[in-house]
Amino acid sequence: MVRIDKIYTRTGDKGQTRLSTGEQVPKWHPRVAAYGTVDELNAAVGVAALEAGSDMLARIRRIQNDLFDLGADLATPDRGRVLEWTPLRIIATQVTRLEEEIDAMNAAIAPLDSFILPGGSRLAAQLHVARTLCRRAERYMAELASLENEPVNAEALAFINRLSDWLFVAGRAANNDGADDVKWVPGANR
Amino acid sequence: MVRIDKIYTRTGDKGQTRLSTGEQVPKWHPRVAAYGTVDELNAAVGVAALEAGSDMLARIRRIQNDLFDLGADLATPDRGRVLEWTPLRIIATQVTRLEEEIDAMNAAIAPLDSFILPGGSRLAAQLHVARTLCRRAERYMAELASLENEPVNAEALAFINRLSDWLFVAGRAANNDGADDVKWVPGANR
Amino acid sequence: MVRIDKIYTRTGDKGQTRLSTGEQVPKWHPRVAAYGTVDELNAAVGVAALEAGSDMLARIRRIQNDLFDLGADLATPDRGRVLEWTPLRIIATQVTRLEEEIDAMNAAIAPLDSFILPGGSRLAAQLHVARTLCRRAERYMAELASLENEPVNAEALAFINRLSDWLFVAGRAANNDGADDVKWVPGANR
Ligand code: B12
Ligand code: B12
Ligand code: B12
Ligand SMILES: C[C@H]1O[C@@H](n2cnc3c(N)ncnc32)[C@H](O)[C@@H]1O
Ligand SMILES: C[C@H]1O[C@@H](n2cnc3c(N)ncnc32)[C@H](O)[C@@H]1O
Ligand SMILES: C[C@H]1O[C@@H](n2cnc3c(N)ncnc32)[C@H](O)[C@@H]1O
Ligand SMILES: [Mg+2]
Ligand SMILES: [Mg+2]
Ligand SMILES: [Mg+2]
Repeated sequence: MVRIDKIYTRTGDKGQTRLSTGEQVPKWHPRVAAYGTVDELNAAVGVAALEAGSDMLARIRRIQNDLFDLGADLATPDRGRVLEWTPLRIIATQVTRLEEEIDAMNAAIAPLDSFILPGGSRLAAQLHVARTLCRRAERYMAELASLENEPVNAEALAFINRLSDWLFVAGRAANNDGADDVKWVPGANR
Repeated sequence: MVRIDKIYTRTGDKGQTRLSTGEQVPKWHPRVAAYGTVDELNAAVGVAALEAGSDMLARIRRIQNDLFDLGADLATPDRGRVLEWTPLRIIATQVTRLEEEIDAMNAAIAPLDSFILPGGSRLAAQLHVARTLCRRAERYMAELASLENEPVNAEALAFINRLSDWLFVAGRAANNDGADDVKWVPGANR
Repeated sequence: MVRIDKIYTRTGDKGQTRLSTGEQVPKWHPRVAAYGTVDELNAAVGVAALEAGSDMLARIRRIQNDLFDLGADLATPDRGRVLEWTPLRIIATQVTRLEEEIDAMNAAIAPLDSFILPGGSRLAAQLHVARTLCRRAERYMAELASLENEPVNAEALAFINRLSDWLFVAGRAANNDGADDVKWVPGANR
């Protein structure tokens, strides 16, 4: 179990740290960047939560909890060795729950024939911020997965990909089911 | 024309995606990072917009629209092949419009003999966030441009460089034309 | 002394820039990324400041000032050559001040047996954003320090490491001394 009490330990002052497995890595290791960016995404979701009504808030808190499952998954590379505990992994039902929520929200929303300017209501604006951070987290996860000997759970990749679409649709929902979204007009200011 | 309806397609779950030209690339490709960071910047601008009065809001909406022109430009590398459509490119007048707006805003603002602490009014604080994201987007664009066979429109680079200066000056304008800005005092806490 | 008046100079439109020493580097140089991310962190701290009461605000303003000391430090690599001025460096007392403030804030806060979901009060939510940006800045600084011929002051690394712990504890303080923090429940939604 994680224990957080003294907080600072000074051990990381030279730029090295540890994964959950105890493996030592530099702080700029792509795996640390991946879960560090998931942490950053989670913080942005926490700002969006400030603006959410109770239904949306319940969904958001679930996502925040899932993002720590994702962080634990990323922090525990499957090196084929047996660990002292069963590592926590993102599983398919966490992805399908997102899909079901997307479908439910999207049912009320008209399709688009252009991109929409991020913003609108306070909630929508913050969901767009989270959406773009989610896509940044995905880029780091995909990069990590492309490296040799750096396994990434396929469900974790599906989860982060679906989450950015969830955040997009939730953003539209928060703009009066898309009615208040402002569309991009290509080359309008030229 | 862009069509956004079903939103999630699951095709990107393995970490690959496509440019507007149909070219397949990994999601962590520097070009995707560049337009993805422009999207992130655009989301931050959307948060600043929440705090803007009507004149500033009109300017900000124009910039958000231009940022999609920029995204389209970056997503469509000029490989010397003829496309089925005329690619959208940032042009010089989009840069000079920023310069004119900078000059107009800056006229009322006193010069500085030190950096200013980002923050102040809500609008100023969010413009500083956008400013630093703009500079991050610029770093990715400059990195992309430095790679072989990765053309970047010179006007696009000028646009992003000027935009961070626009955001700085707009931030000062939003702090009572700079009168409320707090200056950095080198080494004050030593 | 820094002078900021005309703001835009157009000289950087081709993707090159200069360190404080006059040395020319590409904008995507790891050193520029490091101090650029410190600037981004500083902007996030400026947003948190909007929500702070007077005691916290005083501490935050001190940190913002220190972050410019850090930026100056990073922008001035010690190449063993004599400069025309004494470069500004982060010193140990700036790190110990953070430690003292952490200890003071932490005294009132109960230890944790799990991670906490970022968010809660507006101030806490924004401090978590700043915390994750601080850790990103640390990753870039650590990466820079790992490169050959790219010296980074050891106290600067200690400062940024301690600052993310400061931001964590300040976030707990801003959630009713931790009483309102919501804990992660591993695998709760599976
Ligand atoms: C990865 C990691 C992170 C990541 C990702 C975490 C995630 N899940 O998303 C991120 C970047 C978010 C993070 C952030 C922070 N972290 Co951290 N983190 C870790 C690390 C390396 C692993 C934690 C983890 O996720 N484990 C996986 C989960 C599933 O494990 P678990 O909860 O322990 O449960 C499993 C097993 O332990 C097992 N189990 C449970 N009980 C028991 C008992 C026994 C006997 C056994 C055998 C097994 C077992 O069952 C579970 C199986 O699934 C630990 C160090 C470590 N090795 O534990 C530090 C650590 C917990 N973090 C630490 C700190 C300080 C922080 C931050 C405060 C840093 C900061 N300033 O931002 C923040 C807090 C964030 C928050 N919101 O609360 C410190 C705490 C120091 C202290 N004692 O006060 C630690 C100990 C690192 C250190 N040495 O400095 N962290
Ligand atoms: C690049 C890109 C992005 C980038 C940059 C976009 C930008 N301009 O800044 C970013 C990262 C922002 C982005 C974000 C998103 N995107 Co996107 N994006 C694309 C991509 C690859 C190209 C879009 C583009 O900019 N084209 C350039 C512009 C100028 O083209 P255009 O509007 O079509 O107009 C030109 C031509 O098409 C031509 N033209 C116009 N009409 C016609 C008709 C004919 C017959 C012809 C020949 C030519 C023509 O004239 C114009 C000439 O200048 C498309 C896929 C694709 N190949 O179209 C996906 C795509 C549109 N995106 C998609 C999605 C899902 C999203 C996001 C929702 C993802 C997310 N969860 O965040 C967001 C939405 C953002 C928002 N705010 O609305 C999906 C939509 C799926 C669906 N059907 O629902 C697509 C189709 C990709 C996919 N297959 O999954 N995207
Ligand atoms: C590094 C840097 C940054 C970094 C980091 C700065 C930091 N400290 O954190 C960051 C990324 C934050 C930054 C941001 C910006 N910057 Co800047 N930055 C610089 C740079 C390269 C060095 C500044 C610095 O930190 N120096 C170190 C400190 C300690 O030096 P100092 O204050 O001058 O004091 C020392 C010495 O100068 C000496 N000294 C003092 N007085 C005197 C006098 C004499 C005669 C001598 C010999 C010595 C001396 O004593 C001090 C010793 O410790 C300068 C260019 C340059 N070479 O000066 C541009 C520069 C100041 N920046 C510039 C600009 C435009 C900006 C931004 C507005 C860009 C933007 N759009 O975001 C922002 C403003 C941010 C803000 N909040 O105010 C321009 C200003 C142009 C103008 N005249 O208007 C400059 C001149 C670069 C350029 N040519 O374009 N910047
Ligand atoms: C909508 C468009 O965004 C691009 N794309 C797909 N995944 C990401 C990501 N994680 N970050 C940035 N851009 C992405 C692709 O080009 C896709 O077609
Ligand atoms: C003001 C100073 O900021 C630095 N600089 C110039 N462009 C960028 C950027 N995109 N990101 C971060 N720093 C930058 C240079 O060192 C310049 O002199
Ligand atoms: C709490 C955990 O966070 C990780 N860690 C340490 N420093 C950083 C950083 N700058 N960014 C992201 N993660 C970090 C380590 O794995 C540590 O144990
Ligand atoms: Mg996707
Ligand atoms: Mg510039
Ligand atoms: Mg640390």
